[in-house]
Amino acid sequence: MTGLDINVLLRQRYGEGNAPQLSDPAVVSSPTLELLLRHRSVRSFTSDEVSDDVITAVVAAAQSAASSSNNQSWSVVEVRDRGRLRRLVTEAKGSDLIADAPVVLLFVADWSRASDIAQWQGEAADAAAYLESTLVGFVDAGIAAQSAVVAAEALGLGTVYLGSLRNHAEITADEIGLPQGAAVAFGVAIGWPDPEDTAGIKPRLPQRAVRSRERYRRIERDDVDAYEEALAAYNASQGRTGNWTRQVVARVRDIAGLHGRENARAALEKRGLPSR
Amino acid sequence: MTGLDINVLLRQRYGEGNAPQLSDPAVVSSPTLELLLRHRSVRSFTSDEVSDDVITAVVAAAQSAASSSNNQSWSVVEVRDRGRLRRLVTEAKGSDLIADAPVVLLFVADWSRASDIAQWQGEAADAAAYLESTLVGFVDAGIAAQSAVVAAEALGLGTVYLGSLRNHAEITADEIGLPQGAAVAFGVAIGWPDPEDTAGIKPRLPQRAVRSRERYRRIERDDVDAYEEALAAYNASQGRTGNWTRQVVARVRDIAGLHGRENARAALEKRGLPSR
Repeated sequence: MTGLDINVLLRQRYGEGNAPQLSDPAVVSSPTLELLLRHRSVRSFTSDEVSDDVITAVVAAAQSAASSSNNQSWSVVEVRDRGRLRRLVTEAKGSDLIADAPVVLLFVADWSRASDIAQWQGEAADAAAYLESTLVGFVDAGIAAQSAVVAAEALGLGTVYLGSLRNHAEITADEIGLPQGAAVAFGVAIGWPDPEDTAGIKPRLPQRAVRSRERYRRIERDDVDAYEEALAAYNASQGRTGNWTRQVVARVRDIAGLHGRENARAALEKRGLPSR
Repeated sequence: MTGLDINVLLRQRYGEGNAPQLSDPAVVSSPTLELLLRHRSVRSFTSDEVSDDVITAVVAAAQSAASSSNNQSWSVVEVRDRGRLRRLVTEAKGSDLIADAPVVLLFVADWSRASDIAQWQGEAADAAAYLESTLVGFVDAGIAAQSAVVAAEALGLGTVYLGSLRNHAEITADEIGLPQGAAVAFGVAIGWPDPEDTAGIKPRLPQRAVRSRERYRRIERDDVDAYEEALAAYNASQGRTGNWTRQVVARVRDIAGLHGRENARAALEKRGLPSR
């Protein structure tokens, strides 16, 4: 590490014109910061096995992350069975990526464990029915999963998040035998990156568009213009096209952007998480 | 690194009797894995300043994490103003920790940005009203925040998550000027750890209670007994007492465990995120 790399990575992450320039020696020499800034989603894996030691370490990292009031209201189901992974695509309409990954970790927002424990004590589990509990389960799953992802990347593995595992919550839940009070929040596919995969560091919005000081600053047209320019340069380098504004508008404009996930509330209710 | 540390940390994290033992040389020699396993929440900070370079790096790490379909539906508001931090405790009923932290990052589930962009195009933002969108905003905030936390810890800082910033969503939103379509998901306090803080690595549930293979495995009484034992040993070392089962039951039994956050749905609706 020379101090150069962090600033090179920031220019890749934000685009040449939008990148902050850092000089603090402690900051520019951190290998873990470098790892975090280098993140890219990996969508193409080799056929090499991912060992049990690796997944044990990755789950230990996930469990080491913070958890709301130490309730640990998430779980993870490790799926390697080819038939099951295929069914998560064909039956549960998950992303095609699932069928080709050596391991998929299904992160579960889990109030069934607390409910079981309450039942042993002759108590109810009424608070699991509230939206606050659903949010805690999903956020804790996100926090845990991100530490799992960082651990995996530190070991040289690649990962990709799979929100598509929310497409058919009941089919997914049946496939892994989830009890009431538990729902898959998302999956994370893990494997060794295909060396021929040329995907790079995808630019993000200028930091000024995401980070405010003291009071929230609304996005301005210049921010989006600067971002579209950075993204266009990246896409051109990948032989692709695309427009972020159009993509965001298609996602948010109307129910069509939800691709069926407008049923999330009903689906969670069936899972025993009515989110009231 | 000798290969010893990772296994020592696993014994601290799970307790002597419950810890897995890893031997893969690549796993036991990863400094980033060591950092992740060492995580502890820091609730006592020195008065030393946290530089702008540090927060810029931390936010860059957060933005480098995965984001659902690259929608980047989260924001962060950096609060340092002592009066504002005090009001987040006295008026918004946030944790006392907030008033003593040098910096608090408020992570925001943010569909207001996408709504602004849609409006510029003469389009609506109807899909922001669904629970799927709320969940994506909260999960993306969680994923981003955890990369921020890991980056901060890599630089020697300490952090603590602050779910208490959901206690009075409107007051918190007013304090930082949040527009409709945006809500604070949680905060993260960041500072230099007080060297006199003796908090250690808090044990978590045995890995078998959280990680299943192929099909979900329900928790068993033995798992909880093993955990209570590990936690009791840790608490004794800290001069504290406590019982996890009682705490979980108090959280989940009835509405009292939500401490007012049973209003999360109404609060999000007021924020323009009705989560339908």
